[in-house]
Amino acid sequence: MTDTKKDANAMWGGRFAAGPDAIMEAINASIGYDQRLAQQDITGSRAHAAMLAAQGIISDKDAEAIREGLLTVLSEIENGDFAFSTALEDIHMNVEARLKELIGEPAGRLHTARSRNDQVATDFRLWVRDQVDAAIEGLDALIRAFLDQAEAGADWVMPGFTHLQTAQPVTWGHHMMAYVEMFARDKSRFEDARRRMNESPLGAAALAGTGFDIDRHMTAEALGFDRPMANSLDAVSDRDHALEFLSCATICALHLSRFSEELVIWSSAQFRFVTLSDRFSTGSSIMPQKKNPDAAELIRAKIGRIMGAMVALFTVMKGLPLAYSKDMQEDKEQVFDAADNLMLSLAAMTGMVSDLTANRDALAAAASSGFSTATDLADWLVRELGLPFRDAHHVTGSLVALAEDKGCDLPDLSLDDLRSVHDAITEDVFNVLTVDASVASRTSYGGTAPVRVREQTAAWREKLS
Amino acid sequence: MTDTKKDANAMWGGRFAAGPDAIMEAINASIGYDQRLAQQDITGSRAHAAMLAAQGIISDKDAEAIREGLLTVLSEIENGDFAFSTALEDIHMNVEARLKELIGEPAGRLHTARSRNDQVATDFRLWVRDQVDAAIEGLDALIRAFLDQAEAGADWVMPGFTHLQTAQPVTWGHHMMAYVEMFARDKSRFEDARRRMNESPLGAAALAGTGFDIDRHMTAEALGFDRPMANSLDAVSDRDHALEFLSCATICALHLSRFSEELVIWSSAQFRFVTLSDRFSTGSSIMPQKKNPDAAELIRAKIGRIMGAMVALFTVMKGLPLAYSKDMQEDKEQVFDAADNLMLSLAAMTGMVSDLTANRDALAAAASSGFSTATDLADWLVRELGLPFRDAHHVTGSLVALAEDKGCDLPDLSLDDLRSVHDAITEDVFNVLTVDASVASRTSYGGTAPVRVREQTAAWREKLS
Amino acid sequence: MTDTKKDANAMWGGRFAAGPDAIMEAINASIGYDQRLAQQDITGSRAHAAMLAAQGIISDKDAEAIREGLLTVLSEIENGDFAFSTALEDIHMNVEARLKELIGEPAGRLHTARSRNDQVATDFRLWVRDQVDAAIEGLDALIRAFLDQAEAGADWVMPGFTHLQTAQPVTWGHHMMAYVEMFARDKSRFEDARRRMNESPLGAAALAGTGFDIDRHMTAEALGFDRPMANSLDAVSDRDHALEFLSCATICALHLSRFSEELVIWSSAQFRFVTLSDRFSTGSSIMPQKKNPDAAELIRAKIGRIMGAMVALFTVMKGLPLAYSKDMQEDKEQVFDAADNLMLSLAAMTGMVSDLTANRDALAAAASSGFSTATDLADWLVRELGLPFRDAHHVTGSLVALAEDKGCDLPDLSLDDLRSVHDAITEDVFNVLTVDASVASRTSYGGTAPVRVREQTAAWREKLS
Amino acid sequence: MTDTKKDANAMWGGRFAAGPDAIMEAINASIGYDQRLAQQDITGSRAHAAMLAAQGIISDKDAEAIREGLLTVLSEIENGDFAFSTALEDIHMNVEARLKELIGEPAGRLHTARSRNDQVATDFRLWVRDQVDAAIEGLDALIRAFLDQAEAGADWVMPGFTHLQTAQPVTWGHHMMAYVEMFARDKSRFEDARRRMNESPLGAAALAGTGFDIDRHMTAEALGFDRPMANSLDAVSDRDHALEFLSCATICALHLSRFSEELVIWSSAQFRFVTLSDRFSTGSSIMPQKKNPDAAELIRAKIGRIMGAMVALFTVMKGLPLAYSKDMQEDKEQVFDAADNLMLSLAAMTGMVSDLTANRDALAAAASSGFSTATDLADWLVRELGLPFRDAHHVTGSLVALAEDKGCDLPDLSLDDLRSVHDAITEDVFNVLTVDASVASRTSYGGTAPVRVREQTAAWREKLS
Repeated sequence: MTDTKKDANAMWGGRFAAGPDAIMEAINASIGYDQRLAQQDITGSRAHAAMLAAQGIISDKDAEAIREGLLTVLSEIENGDFAFSTALEDIHMNVEARLKELIGEPAGRLHTARSRNDQVATDFRLWVRDQVDAAIEGLDALIRAFLDQAEAGADWVMPGFTHLQTAQPVTWGHHMMAYVEMFARDKSRFEDARRRMNESPLGAAALAGTGFDIDRHMTAEALGFDRPMANSLDAVSDRDHALEFLSCATICALHLSRFSEELVIWSSAQFRFVTLSDRFSTGSSIMPQKKNPDAAELIRAKIGRIMGAMVALFTVMKGLPLAYSKDMQEDKEQVFDAADNLMLSLAAMTGMVSDLTANRDALAAAASSGFSTATDLADWLVRELGLPFRDAHHVTGSLVALAEDKGCDLPDLSLDDLRSVHDAITEDVFNVLTVDASVASRTSYGGTAPVRVREQTAAWREKLS
Repeated sequence: MTDTKKDANAMWGGRFAAGPDAIMEAINASIGYDQRLAQQDITGSRAHAAMLAAQGIISDKDAEAIREGLLTVLSEIENGDFAFSTALEDIHMNVEARLKELIGEPAGRLHTARSRNDQVATDFRLWVRDQVDAAIEGLDALIRAFLDQAEAGADWVMPGFTHLQTAQPVTWGHHMMAYVEMFARDKSRFEDARRRMNESPLGAAALAGTGFDIDRHMTAEALGFDRPMANSLDAVSDRDHALEFLSCATICALHLSRFSEELVIWSSAQFRFVTLSDRFSTGSSIMPQKKNPDAAELIRAKIGRIMGAMVALFTVMKGLPLAYSKDMQEDKEQVFDAADNLMLSLAAMTGMVSDLTANRDALAAAASSGFSTATDLADWLVRELGLPFRDAHHVTGSLVALAEDKGCDLPDLSLDDLRSVHDAITEDVFNVLTVDASVASRTSYGGTAPVRVREQTAAWREKLS
Repeated sequence: MTDTKKDANAMWGGRFAAGPDAIMEAINASIGYDQRLAQQDITGSRAHAAMLAAQGIISDKDAEAIREGLLTVLSEIENGDFAFSTALEDIHMNVEARLKELIGEPAGRLHTARSRNDQVATDFRLWVRDQVDAAIEGLDALIRAFLDQAEAGADWVMPGFTHLQTAQPVTWGHHMMAYVEMFARDKSRFEDARRRMNESPLGAAALAGTGFDIDRHMTAEALGFDRPMANSLDAVSDRDHALEFLSCATICALHLSRFSEELVIWSSAQFRFVTLSDRFSTGSSIMPQKKNPDAAELIRAKIGRIMGAMVALFTVMKGLPLAYSKDMQEDKEQVFDAADNLMLSLAAMTGMVSDLTANRDALAAAASSGFSTATDLADWLVRELGLPFRDAHHVTGSLVALAEDKGCDLPDLSLDDLRSVHDAITEDVFNVLTVDASVASRTSYGGTAPVRVREQTAAWREKLS
Repeated sequence: MTDTKKDANAMWGGRFAAGPDAIMEAINASIGYDQRLAQQDITGSRAHAAMLAAQGIISDKDAEAIREGLLTVLSEIENGDFAFSTALEDIHMNVEARLKELIGEPAGRLHTARSRNDQVATDFRLWVRDQVDAAIEGLDALIRAFLDQAEAGADWVMPGFTHLQTAQPVTWGHHMMAYVEMFARDKSRFEDARRRMNESPLGAAALAGTGFDIDRHMTAEALGFDRPMANSLDAVSDRDHALEFLSCATICALHLSRFSEELVIWSSAQFRFVTLSDRFSTGSSIMPQKKNPDAAELIRAKIGRIMGAMVALFTVMKGLPLAYSKDMQEDKEQVFDAADNLMLSLAAMTGMVSDLTANRDALAAAASSGFSTATDLADWLVRELGLPFRDAHHVTGSLVALAEDKGCDLPDLSLDDLRSVHDAITEDVFNVLTVDASVASRTSYGGTAPVRVREQTAAWREKLS
């Protein structure tokens, strides 16, 4: 072997002077990351052992020894007292080997009517399901933070943008509630994914099922699954649950990136729409007034790695024939990383939103500039004077030009000014020209009027309670 | 203008000698592709006009003229008699301009209490919803084709592979049913997406709602939506429905790529597991016996462009502040292309599966080679002789080695041969050593035994009926 | 056939009621898009025919007839007089069939010692090489536009941002030159890609080369290639040139997205750093003062579809065994779309940059706010008073706090104010506290000082001349 | 703090019960991964200190203390004696803090005329450059392994596939050399990337350069860079070098995936074209004859995570305004993971190729089946009898059909058989009908003939020597 290694040194080149055995171990072993499945692996094995005993496939005594021994292993792992071995490749072998040390011969009976293929499929599905639950919980907290902001500022005015240009005034509460809608859809998407993935692969064995008289419904129930998967080939070869988790996570990360972008822009000296708390920003040792929106920027970036993980897993799975191929071992690190970063982003965003201070004056001033009530004026001309839509636009355009000439905004024009362009205009028009009147008037369902916003916040509080 | 263009010629370089106006038109206009939304655009406008009249915002007479005029426009488009104009930028302006030619002044009232922002959001959502329905229908047909194959071959034996190495024998029906499970999950995913997207953006106006007394529930109902969207900013700025459609499509395309890969491999001269019909393969002018699995290869490739479209739209939407930004105009071509290719792939795969001939002899011969019943032997030793799992593996390994030495397979060993390795083995063992016995024995729920496969096909027929 | 179609109607479901033959044609034919390769196809065939004659494989007379006939076909296509046929599948067959109509029997000799595999590889490579040239030309024009801006504003001050927070003042010219560097790297990347791809696949035949005595160097030279590809299997199965083109295009699109983002933010009412020309923005019928930066937003979005195309092609090619597989037919549409959008984006960006007006006052005002010369002060304390870096930061922080208390900026503090924090400070410090002094002082190589910027613009003018 | 944490428990939800400070630390700190830059960070700082002294900005004595102290820090890190601190956020602060402990006050002078922005840009660029070198070295080794195979089997025949159907016979050496071409292009791509990235960001300071009289050319040279970067904003805000590295890595991973797929298919019981060594495959405890091509499958999968990393970084960088944004901190983990996996894959593939045994009999048998010399026959008819290409195809088709009827292959037909279809055929035709004759005849440049293959292997040996 020494000789081989020397040759290897010469031949390998690059980083892997260590020779073929070290390379194969490095590329093949998964224990470096799949130890995160320890709890799920042991829970699954305990359910399997109980079922084997209930079906008379192993003795009650063996099952009891196995189940107790596994608890010991778990507590060793949780306490950091477990020495993971790369030679034992993966979490399943590491756990089983330790179990054998602890309880001896009965350990050898645990793997009856089971294979590593259905075992890892089960472990991983349980892990992903936990992440779905964590995402739902995290989204719940984030939605509540947005609701708090929306309730506080249901009638604070701010500019509604298109193309980052002021278009029409809206309310702070309305803007916050847009994100409630987005994140609530994310939540419902995770809920659907959970229902779809909540089936047990356990008992599919290597790929074909088994001749042992096992009870897959029993293990499914013990593990909180709704039912066993109906096809053993599918059970060991499919990774839909991971892909759907990553898809849901990417859409959610997209929503997070959009609000993060708003926070970064709103925090600029030019906008000053909001002030972030010190906890979620960083300063400068020489410019004490400076606040960098670091957390917002980092969250904005997270869609990169989460979508990257999704692309990675789709690419890995593309064109794989049934049933199990080793390629599929690449599934876990991608999902681990995406899940960690999603949960962290949700938590950080919840913190930022909770701590966020809206600068009402700056928002109001921006809302009032840029002739933001021009549409209200045009609508008034249609509604009250019966002008066709396109004519109303023409009149409005002339009035905006007039105001611009005079260096004022629309509500600052006199009635005479207004009548100089269209003589049927009445005093009543001033009721729609201010920003507050504008937002108050937009009472269509889902509109920005404070009354509508409060209806929505109340409805969501009810739903979430 | 001529001068500008001459300057432009000098300055622009590259392909766009035409000057800035031509470049802006080329990058800005969407009519080249959004004309595919014509039917949805007109349906939406007709619903909007009816609602405006019902609410007394426009007269019944105007509404009637608008609604009739729009039908005329639609029939012109469907008959190919409509001259689309790039100067009019998009489908909305093209339709409205033609309507004005047809009915005159009332056309100008159609756009009351509406904006292009909620109009395009509505059109596009209706279009995507139609594609979801088409995908569901296409999946239904494909599932039935797999069911036909599964029913025909519930007890045909074939090798079950791991790592493309023979692992255990399975049944053809079982393998086909694995795809039924996958495509049925795809279907349920599209159904969930449909439910989630089935809300109406119409009436969100530019972004803030409107002061007109509109009835968004009425238009929602007329267009088959379950309800209006609850936040107008969200309504015009979100593209979740497109992203979720693309995610579902990519997972589905992944499943298609896997069976395509199997078809390509199975069609090789080395495997000969299946024969594709002439309709879905191409030949060679000089090798008449050759059949290239072109359709399978093309479908295998489609996940590329469908995932590419998904990545494209996520990237476009990343970090966009609310509400509408022009970037979002890039949404449609991606979804159009992905939808077209998904529907085409589903149809082509349905055709291929329907026409597919399994070469039962080749499948059976392959199933019987490679000591594919070794696991059955090991399981028998555990089950009947009470050997611990690891010991059973050891005995089996020795017997496989013995068979290999003798140049035969496991069922060809004599009882004496078997007893030479473990003397408690009985005649009964031969009941599990043949391929047929092996698959028949795997009767665990979801297992490959013909009886289990037939239960599953029956259950699916029931569900789909 | 009618019966089949009727059955098909029942069975297919989805969109493809047309039956299997129509589906196969729809998925298999490429003429719908590969007609864009017509010019390259004909150029390649003409070179091939000339070589066959030179080697005595076909007669000079036949070669002449073929070469003339192909020119006729090309002019028919260019004049729009060519009827493309889907039944003839692709551009190669369409051209050859028409050639046969035109010149009869000699047409049948053109395909000697050639196959569609090397033919399409050659056509596509020529097409991509043309796009590389167009990209280089487009980048050249864009770089010149940035140089114009940099020269005009070499000493205009503006804020340099980190985290979209003012960090230090920089010059407009310096900021523009950052993009010159980026786009120049893009150009060099395309140049490298061109060199690498500039090898001829022609003569690789189906995959193994040919027994005819062809001269691949002659056709390579005729088509402007540096040499023939050295391995025929590689020649027909590789798509590196397309992938490298897409990679280069995506990096370039990323740079475009960054400047687009800046344009959108800088055009906002809150920033007002720049004014876009009317040609590259759109207005509002009722808000005549409003300018939406549509072109900038669309260019910002283009990285989506260009990266999507790259992801698509990588995914298509993943795991394909040698040599040709039909999957590879999916290469062209992706590259076509990415190339079209890259060239359009480069042209539109060149136009926008050329037309761009910097609002010098707004830039200068923003540069002076936010204590942007705090670093200069700290550096002065290190340099002139010998304070350790960290101490200098401490002193500076105290002075910024003092200025903030007084509601002024750093240069507005009196010498007494400054000495109240550190008594060794001298009058000389005011030479670094103004924005102009700050930028003038940053004369390190590559720094923002106008003198450095002008050195760079001059150097780039020289390089590009 | 306890109170905050309790509140946090209630509010946060999800995983982060720990409260805002822990969340911010978790999302913000990079020391968990950027400690991999320790060596580069210290090398860069030593060069910077030497330059500061040479320019008289700090004293020689301080510079010496700093440079010695940094060596001590490095050796502590390399020996595992360094306690990294998350509170100190990143590698730069960790190193500097320890330096201060070691040498006191002079440590505070190291950061003069530098910022973390140019420091991290320098560190990361050095790291990536090292990976480029490692990739080039790894590719060299891999190319040599393929050359060994090609030389050994320059005249071994095997089937050349299109659509995974036998098309024409080729030589083993020729097939191996196709990969030499691919990996050599990869190498040249990395070489180009290296040249382009080999510029020093050091001295760009925060973003604007500095007023200190630094010598950027001196540090550039000390660090092996060709020159300093010419624009300080570009220097701190661009990540082209990382993106180009990832692009090159993805193309390389694609090539690896293609050969991996071939190895998996060729290792199947149905193909048996090759035997993998035990070192790069895994067995089964009960089927000792089974060899799973685990390493090949894992390498096939690696393009997923490498492309995923590229997509991630492009997405992160999309639309970021200049200069530095915190989003860019997401660059490192992606590149680290991609580089690690690329190097591992190159090494494992080199090992597999070196150990690979071609099953010459199986290859030859497959090459001879499927009428693989039909093209040779057609070419002979064109070349020797002067038949037009399409007629030759017709005759060949008839002869293949005849052979198929007789259950034999083309060389087994008698001359009478051949003449029954076309009476001008002569005995001479048999010289091209055997597989060996076929490959020997394909002597066009780059063709599969052994003589051509040996020319290529010789030329590559020369280039690599």
